[in-house]
Amino acid sequence: MSQQILNYLPISELSPLIRDKKISPVELVQACLDRVNALDSQFHAFIHVMEKSSLSEAKKAERAISSGEYKGPLHGIPIGLKDLYYTKGVPTTAGSPILADFIPEEDATAVTKITDAGGVILGKLNLHPFAYGAIGLNPDYGTPPNPWGTERIPGGSSSGSGVALITGMIPAATGSDTGGSIRIPASICGVVGIKPTYGRVSKHGVIPLSWSLDHTGPMTRSVEDCAILLQAMAGYDPKDPGSRDIPVPNYLAEMKQPIKGLKVGLPVKEFYSRLQSGVREKVEQAIKVLEQLGVSVEEVDVPSMDEAAAISLGILGPEVAAYHRKWIEERPKDYFPQVLTRIKSGMFVPAVDYIKAHQARARFTQGYLKAMEGVDLLITPTEQLTAPKIEETVVTIDGVEEATQNLMVALNRPFNLTGFPAISIPCGFDENGLPVGLQIIGKPFQEGVVLRTAFNYEQATPWHSKRPNLKD
Amino acid sequence: MSQQILNYLPISELSPLIRDKKISPVELVQACLDRVNALDSQFHAFIHVMEKSSLSEAKKAERAISSGEYKGPLHGIPIGLKDLYYTKGVPTTAGSPILADFIPEEDATAVTKITDAGGVILGKLNLHPFAYGAIGLNPDYGTPPNPWGTERIPGGSSSGSGVALITGMIPAATGSDTGGSIRIPASICGVVGIKPTYGRVSKHGVIPLSWSLDHTGPMTRSVEDCAILLQAMAGYDPKDPGSRDIPVPNYLAEMKQPIKGLKVGLPVKEFYSRLQSGVREKVEQAIKVLEQLGVSVEEVDVPSMDEAAAISLGILGPEVAAYHRKWIEERPKDYFPQVLTRIKSGMFVPAVDYIKAHQARARFTQGYLKAMEGVDLLITPTEQLTAPKIEETVVTIDGVEEATQNLMVALNRPFNLTGFPAISIPCGFDENGLPVGLQIIGKPFQEGVVLRTAFNYEQATPWHSKRPNLKD
Repeated sequence: MSQQILNYLPISELSPLIRDKKISPVELVQACLDRVNALDSQFHAFIHVMEKSSLSEAKKAERAISSGEYKGPLHGIPIGLKDLYYTKGVPTTAGSPILADFIPEEDATAVTKITDAGGVILGKLNLHPFAYGAIGLNPDYGTPPNPWGTERIPGGSSSGSGVALITGMIPAATGSDTGGSIRIPASICGVVGIKPTYGRVSKHGVIPLSWSLDHTGPMTRSVEDCAILLQAMAGYDPKDPGSRDIPVPNYLAEMKQPIKGLKVGLPVKEFYSRLQSGVREKVEQAIKVLEQLGVSVEEVDVPSMDEAAAISLGILGPEVAAYHRKWIEERPKDYFPQVLTRIKSGMFVPAVDYIKAHQARARFTQGYLKAMEGVDLLITPTEQLTAPKIEETVVTIDGVEEATQNLMVALNRPFNLTGFPAISIPCGFDENGLPVGLQIIGKPFQEGVVLRTAFNYEQATPWHSKRPNLKD
Repeated sequence: MSQQILNYLPISELSPLIRDKKISPVELVQACLDRVNALDSQFHAFIHVMEKSSLSEAKKAERAISSGEYKGPLHGIPIGLKDLYYTKGVPTTAGSPILADFIPEEDATAVTKITDAGGVILGKLNLHPFAYGAIGLNPDYGTPPNPWGTERIPGGSSSGSGVALITGMIPAATGSDTGGSIRIPASICGVVGIKPTYGRVSKHGVIPLSWSLDHTGPMTRSVEDCAILLQAMAGYDPKDPGSRDIPVPNYLAEMKQPIKGLKVGLPVKEFYSRLQSGVREKVEQAIKVLEQLGVSVEEVDVPSMDEAAAISLGILGPEVAAYHRKWIEERPKDYFPQVLTRIKSGMFVPAVDYIKAHQARARFTQGYLKAMEGVDLLITPTEQLTAPKIEETVVTIDGVEEATQNLMVALNRPFNLTGFPAISIPCGFDENGLPVGLQIIGKPFQEGVVLRTAFNYEQATPWHSKRPNLKD
């Protein structure tokens, strides 16, 4: 099989080929490494490529499978890790010179779970420094250009994950999401990314941004692949104080059920009031497709976006500042200035405001639970816009000018506050050929319903199989 | 039976008499009301006596028991509530003019549980305003004098609970404990009080001081009575976000087992370094009694008291200020000035310090868990001193002068940070005839072992049956 084909095959097709020894994990890993070598000087998706260890792990996987010890669908599959995930003996930089020399002594729990399931770690992926930015800039390791238009942003903070996936460098990656950092690059790069329920996937060994808002999760090119990787990553971890001991269902089995009869709420007032026309058109078409698949749709009222913004500011700023306080005093010059400014602003929030923000957050979450009482899911655009150009620090939609950073997180952030599971999947392309993302939100620990809806939609539409023209 | 005898009978003896219709709940409630009327103009234990409703509830209990509907050991037993516990239709003042006109529309969950078990609410008990003080002062509702020496403090903040119990006004009361507010008045007044594990007893409908440090629990004159009331109050409550869904064992059955073979740790360095000589002597004697009962004793190292103080300041101050912010701006003159000053100081703690304090608290708790790995319990004095005089705002022990407020909370506060269960029981009297308290601390959700140790000790010693000379 040609490398070019291997590079874009989903895990769901690669796995049976590996299991049946029709392709070798070594061949697959080599195809990924070759693709990285060919493209990454342009795309800066990787901060660290683990060439040697990935090939040796692939050989181990090959030998194991040859001796009949097939572990399951991740066995021998190359996976990229956002460079916040601890990797034993391999630098873990958080995309910043502050941690350029940091070499963890253990793997993150999620990484151990992936390798225990047979996954082969290919390398560490680029990000907005310390995950504190939705654009995906990185002055030190290079800003990954958007493969659908290289003058445009990749979305962040999991920029390397989005770009490596859509350029075919890897079939699967991990991300983290504090205000949209999985869903934003998924939407902007045209791939799939799920932020699971808070507590579903361990954060032990993942460098924190904001402990009470951070989530970890998978990014892939298809919903089924997303379910395969989530299945491996999910589960209780006593080392993560936020982890919840709630049984993990069989996502793959649940996902393949039909969605007829599901009830979808559209939070029209808060999520649909200001959208680029291309986004509105594609999302409305997606909802029609879901209706054709038997889903019923009704409008719902949810807590206000302004409230989400205010609560988020009161929580995010001080939690980030608490983690960075020592470094911003001792090594301010090693920070990306834009990130340093944001971190510093969190230093001066009074604790009473932080506590009040947490109390408001509890009420906000109750408001969402109430809004979802009569429905199974919410559906919204992931973003109000498609990828802006890198120099566009403000964007005008419907005559209103707003900072790009704020726009990018607006429709994502509410579900970091509530902790509800939310996926972004491709649902079409705008007039500039840029991908549009559809966000599907479930109730706590209902990732299964979210994946099932996304999978049924994906089966009925062609968007996930579109590729950017890379002149390769 | 004479009222005088009824007033000091424990629940464990009252219950069979009520069950067997040898005394009526009406007779018992009337005996309590008479005692309150006779003594409370001097002792200020009650803020509100529910004379009418307690008699009518007692009559209902009498009728129910007459018709064979006996509910168990709390049926027909009069109980006083610290005036932080919501009582439907009855003023709930928190001991402050700020809430003088506040009449809740529902009972606190713990109150519902007590009345569901047949308890009769006799009235609302005095406290240090808003529970923010360990002395037990109250300029608005009167400071309850210590029955063992009326020129001395009652201990706080649950001052009314301690005083009402030891003067025989009630057989049982509720308290709350944020830095010792159950254990301090128990020790200082010579009664029993347990701070259960954080999450064991619901706080829904109890006016908060500091949500992450507050605990609710029972106060009585004997360990068995304490177990009876805790049994009724304990259990999961979805209305309290801090409540934990962990099954409640049968405390009464567990309590009566022998303690031979239990291992006790003595945190000598941190808890025994500076004690009044009377306290040291009585606690050392108590440990000898426990050894005679078959307990083995070893020295253990625990996290430092200085750390506990620092962490507590970073958490308590801002949590209290967050709750009071609106009132301290709008009605500063309605606050007890000493309380107002303390609340205001919490307004200016930065959120990063609050967050760091919570992180330090998690490490502090881990340190205690580690210290207790080889033992079942810790034993310490409850207080470094016996009741000082009301005007003694500083006390000198071993040549070191310290604010009374700080001294009172020092040996209690660590277990509000860890959330571990801790009881205070009487273990003797000093040279001034003032009671000394013994603190027994268990591992999380091990109230049973704590009660069992306290009960076995109590059975072997006479201290819980001593009464102050009230000239009544």
